[in-house]
Amino acid sequence: MAKTPEEQYPHKAFGWAARDSSGVLSPFTFSRRANGDNDITLEVLYCGICHSDLHSIKNDFGMAIYPMVPGHEIVGIVTQVGSNVKKFKVGDKAGVGCLVGSCRSCHSCAQDLENYCPKLIPTYGFIDKDGTPTYGGYSNMLVVDEHFGVNFPDNLPLDAAAPLLCAGITMYSPMKYFGLCTPGMHLGIVGLGGLGHVGVKFAKAMGMKVTVISTSISKKKEAIEQLGADEFLISKDPEQMQAATGTLDGIIDTVSAAHPLLPLLGLLKNHGKLVIVGVPDKPFELPAFPLLMGRKLVSGSAIGGIKETQEMIDFAAKHNITADIEVIPIDYVNTAMERLVKGDVKYRFVIDVANSLKSS
Amino acid sequence: MAKTPEEQYPHKAFGWAARDSSGVLSPFTFSRRANGDNDITLEVLYCGICHSDLHSIKNDFGMAIYPMVPGHEIVGIVTQVGSNVKKFKVGDKAGVGCLVGSCRSCHSCAQDLENYCPKLIPTYGFIDKDGTPTYGGYSNMLVVDEHFGVNFPDNLPLDAAAPLLCAGITMYSPMKYFGLCTPGMHLGIVGLGGLGHVGVKFAKAMGMKVTVISTSISKKKEAIEQLGADEFLISKDPEQMQAATGTLDGIIDTVSAAHPLLPLLGLLKNHGKLVIVGVPDKPFELPAFPLLMGRKLVSGSAIGGIKETQEMIDFAAKHNITADIEVIPIDYVNTAMERLVKGDVKYRFVIDVANSLKSS
Repeated sequence: MAKTPEEQYPHKAFGWAARDSSGVLSPFTFSRRANGDNDITLEVLYCGICHSDLHSIKNDFGMAIYPMVPGHEIVGIVTQVGSNVKKFKVGDKAGVGCLVGSCRSCHSCAQDLENYCPKLIPTYGFIDKDGTPTYGGYSNMLVVDEHFGVNFPDNLPLDAAAPLLCAGITMYSPMKYFGLCTPGMHLGIVGLGGLGHVGVKFAKAMGMKVTVISTSISKKKEAIEQLGADEFLISKDPEQMQAATGTLDGIIDTVSAAHPLLPLLGLLKNHGKLVIVGVPDKPFELPAFPLLMGRKLVSGSAIGGIKETQEMIDFAAKHNITADIEVIPIDYVNTAMERLVKGDVKYRFVIDVANSLKSS
Repeated sequence: MAKTPEEQYPHKAFGWAARDSSGVLSPFTFSRRANGDNDITLEVLYCGICHSDLHSIKNDFGMAIYPMVPGHEIVGIVTQVGSNVKKFKVGDKAGVGCLVGSCRSCHSCAQDLENYCPKLIPTYGFIDKDGTPTYGGYSNMLVVDEHFGVNFPDNLPLDAAAPLLCAGITMYSPMKYFGLCTPGMHLGIVGLGGLGHVGVKFAKAMGMKVTVISTSISKKKEAIEQLGADEFLISKDPEQMQAATGTLDGIIDTVSAAHPLLPLLGLLKNHGKLVIVGVPDKPFELPAFPLLMGRKLVSGSAIGGIKETQEMIDFAAKHNITADIEVIPIDYVNTAMERLVKGDVKYRFVIDVANSLKSS
């Protein structure tokens, strides 16, 4: 006999949702599915505010489904496990990042690269396998296939580690894939925001020399003194950029605003690698000559697979890497979004979900 | 006591040179240096006409030194060897490609990548270490450091193998460096000219599946029936391109005319590689999204090092790979250049230097 909606979606959940592209969030009550044999249920404790949450609620990607409960930097406590679950038991700390589903059978999935699966299911704002929308971590609880959960080591603070589930893996994955992770290598990181600042920490923990490249001289002191970067370049200063010609083994470019690639290519050594993880609206201009003459490459990278996300979290725990955060209550979220537009946060807002989200 | 010019440059050489940017070549008499301890002297037998010869004599790169004797696909017979020479003896067949010098001490040179040495000395149109211009292979003889010569196996026909020294290594090197050389892989080659047609032959010899991508349907028959390509795509046919979405492991793009990269990126599988070996005048438009979503990369490659050029020649000899050529006498060279502009050659002109070049 077919199950009733109440049997299929028995969990009364609540969170904050966008109802339209205004960018404003407000309290929202909804249902979550029953915990299946392969599922875990999480009580959400903290959820980071990723810059893409802002783009998503404003429908900047043109694919919004409303009401939209954002949030894909989610940590919590496991409150229920299905009969097939092996990775978690009740009471465990767990994290959920940008993905809650993929086909599990394609070439990408077979290589633990669910993030490149053509049927990947983002954690919010997408249609799940059962035809219902996915709702993210600005909410009190979550039901997810255990495959898409990661174990959180005891020594990682849950609030400050939450952003690693998106910002952390977005930086860590290209460092590993493109071989920009070897002691003594010299890595450039363009942009010192949510992504960039954890990138500096990972790169330093890997034993690399790190140069932060930014338009803003005001970030020099914090980049070097607080985050441990070795050098700081003002991208708009031609003399500084010229003096650094051919010094970098690789660059990870986190900037989503339009900017020229040519000066960055100039910073690379021969065979150097420029990896783009931000998405400007307009195409870049890419001159062929510097690519040919130094066999330099330009590529992109998008988050990472679940296995690698676990590896990244374990690496972070081992090296005491967390994000620099400002913890906020959920009812501050609209103000936080306004501040995010202005870049007024060092470096990530994290919502204290458990202590501030109350059902109406 | 300092040597006189006559002692330093005792060889009366002759060839054909451009005197200005008109694109016209005419007979030219000049001097070559004495054969040094590390040098070999070549009697030039054949020299291929590379498309970049045309650009160079017309000063399209803005660095021309006139008179300019072009030619960097040079094969000949060794007529003299210096006391330190180990790779050659008198009577050997030898080839000289795009380079006749490099610093021999930098990081690139130490890795047998003289082609990326910042002090590389091109075979013609450049100032040599002694301050005199380098003159290329449209001439009767050449003196070169043995390091920059490659041994020619007996079974390789000297005329049809000459173009491998530029066109061949330009395709072979990126196949190896980017791992696009494994049996069963699917390689796309954009443009079926001097570079593209030898690329098809190398890729097939490596056991790869090859798709030629061209604007010209007229090349389909020859690509498949004569060169052994497996498939042929008209780049201007959106339906054909759409049907081939996500099928290629890599693409080598030989086209120097301006063209969009986005359709080519669409042909790549996730993690696929687009390698540019032609240099359009204007920068490409590079959208970030397809790079990120499939971790695809765009890079470039320029010829290859001497060690790899020898490896390529040995591979060609083993697999009977040569260029498809039209052999011409030197006094046809200006007509050949006119036909080259129109793409009217299948696929490479090779000058029969020994049998047609006479001193005035």
